[in-house]
Formats: sequence, C-alpha cells, structure tokens
Amino acid sequence: MSHVNWVVSAREENGSDTGLVGRIDLGLDVDELAKATDDLLSRHPLIFDQTQQLAIQVRPGSTDPWYESCYQEKDIAPEREYAELNPELKGTYFEEVVARFPVPLFRTRLLALTSRTCYSVHRDETSRLHVAIQTTEHAPFVFVERNEVFRVPADGNAYLLNTTEVHTAMNGARTLRLHLVAGAELDPSR
Amino acid sequence: MSHVNWVVSAREENGSDTGLVGRIDLGLDVDELAKATDDLLSRHPLIFDQTQQLAIQVRPGSTDPWYESCYQEKDIAPEREYAELNPELKGTYFEEVVARFPVPLFRTRLLALTSRTCYSVHRDETSRLHVAIQTTEHAPFVFVERNEVFRVPADGNAYLLNTTEVHTAMNGARTLRLHLVAGAELDPSR
Repeated sequence: MSHVNWVVSAREENGSDTGLVGRIDLGLDVDELAKATDDLLSRHPLIFDQTQQLAIQVRPGSTDPWYESCYQEKDIAPEREYAELNPELKGTYFEEVVARFPVPLFRTRLLALTSRTCYSVHRDETSRLHVAIQTTEHAPFVFVERNEVFRVPADGNAYLLNTTEVHTAMNGARTLRLHLVAGAELDPSR
Repeated sequence: MSHVNWVVSAREENGSDTGLVGRIDLGLDVDELAKATDDLLSRHPLIFDQTQQLAIQVRPGSTDPWYESCYQEKDIAPEREYAELNPELKGTYFEEVVARFPVPLFRTRLLALTSRTCYSVHRDETSRLHVAIQTTEHAPFVFVERNEVFRVPADGNAYLLNTTEVHTAMNGARTLRLHLVAGAELDPSR
C-alpha cells in the first residue's frame, strides 16, 4: 500500500486516522483535465438523471461503450472487465491520466453530481479512486454511520475512498460537481 | 437556557460537545403527530420543489396563510411575525404541539425533503428547532465547515440546531423526510 498516503479528514484536530480516505499523489494538471472534459462532453453528453456518467474505460468489443458501464453494479458486467481505454479517447489527456496511476484501473468513468442532489446512502463492492475535476467546498462525501465528512480537493491527486463503508456524496453547491472515478485493486487498509 | 440539554453528536466518542445541537424534552406522541400530518397533507399538498413546505404558524390576516412563510427569508416578512396558529389547525394535534414548547415559537412549518436531494449549503439568520415526524438514519444535517453530521431522531423531542453555522440537510433515503421546524428566541450557546 505504499502508493497511498493516509490522510486525516474530519478527525484532523484529534490527530486520529479514520481509515476512510487515502491520497495517491499524481500531480495531474487539473486545468488540462477540465479542458479535456469540456471537449468530451461537447461530443458525448451526460444522459442520466442525478448520477450522470460517461465511460472512460470500456469492455473490448462493446456496442455501447460510452454508457454500458454506467448502470448499477448489479446490472452490468463484473467491474474489472471495463479495463480498456475508450478508443475515442486515445491521444487525449484522459489516456495520460489513466496511465499515470501506479496501479491498473478499471471501470473509470466521468461522474457528475447535480446541484442540490445526493446519492442514496449505500455501500460499494470495492473502494473507489476519485479525482476532482470541478468541485466546491460544499460537495462532500458523507460517511453516514461514521459521522465523517470528506471533500475531495481538485488538487491533481487521486483520493482512495473506502466506499465499502455506508456513504453518500452530496452537492450542496449551485454548480455541477464533476469527478473522475475508477476502480483499482487497492485495499483501503494499510 | 435551562430548556436545552446539550447533546454530543458526531463527537460522542470523544466526549466533546460541538455546540451545534441541543435537545428540548417534549415527550410528543410521534404517531399522533404523523397522523395529524397525514390529515393535513390530504387537505393541503406540499407545493414546492425540493423545499416542500406548509405553514403551521401564520401572520394575522394573511391572504395566503399556508404558503406565505414558505419562501426564503429575504423574500418574506420578518420571521417573528408568523406567530399565530394557522386558524384551520385549531383543535388539531398541531395546536397542542406548538403549546407544548417552553418558549414561544414563530414561523413554524412542516418541511419535507425529497429522496436523494439536499439543500444548498447555507446559514440561517437564527437557530432552528426541529421535530422529526418521518425520517431515517440516512437523512442527516451536515455542518459542512465543522465536519459534523447529526440525525434528528423521531423521538418526540425537539432539537435545537445551530443553523447559523454553515450547513445543509440531505436525504439519502428512498422515502420522504418530514420535519416540523420552528424559530424561537433561543441562543444556541449555554
């Protein structure tokens, strides 16, 4: 787990580590990522209500590459099968971003959260890596049973969130929150 | 402030007091309150998107008593003017509920929060008293700058929330959250 620097989130003032959030230092160019995202969304719009998503990684031979992985886990193929860069993204900054990670990624998606909405409180099967592309101080993750709040900063790094714990994400800002989210073989324990 | 028992919310395990939440023991009958609410909503529907509200207290002589107080503070009369029971509620359990408080209330409203929505992060002018009528473990207040999460239990008591701190409320459940909310001359400090 040497890729992950464990950070103290809500409990910072107590010096305790919640085990909920880790950081992978990537040094991505957030402006370039935002520009690549704008370009992409002008060609492929976000189509879902609330959980608006677009696939960065796809399954080989998919007939619906942009959206096939964008449903609930129970309704799609095993997450690890979405492991190839969407062919249309070759040569874009997304290719560089995916390659920058120190571990292989799967089911990488662009994920938008609309103003004044939140996800149903849930657990995921695995932890998730998040890179904030466009966000504010008012769009945190809330670990409901742990009473923890964590904001992913748009600082060019990836944050490993232990989303196997009961959680939601909310957007209390008036602007869209845009994240890159990916799966990876990383256990959120040291 | 002898009416308020200060409770430890998110920091319970540390034994510290956040100063964000207090409780007023009222011993209300939540089932009776839920039934009175059902009766009321069958006659006067909730009309707003997201912040669906209905006025329990009104201004004398209002021509739109049910909804006049249900806009943002900047768009309505001073909150303290909404201090009379809505005439149609005389003889209902709502009359008893308002009278049960040890301090005068104003701008008491029924407030619904739809599944998978949250309010814009904001501060209120004053603290607020909340009585949960219908809620779940997945519909907390989030004090965004304080990294605190608090769920109002549907236990027949009123909770004084220091909503002058930056906050939102979210509903990550699949059911409607229904609260009674009121203003009162209570300073959320001891």
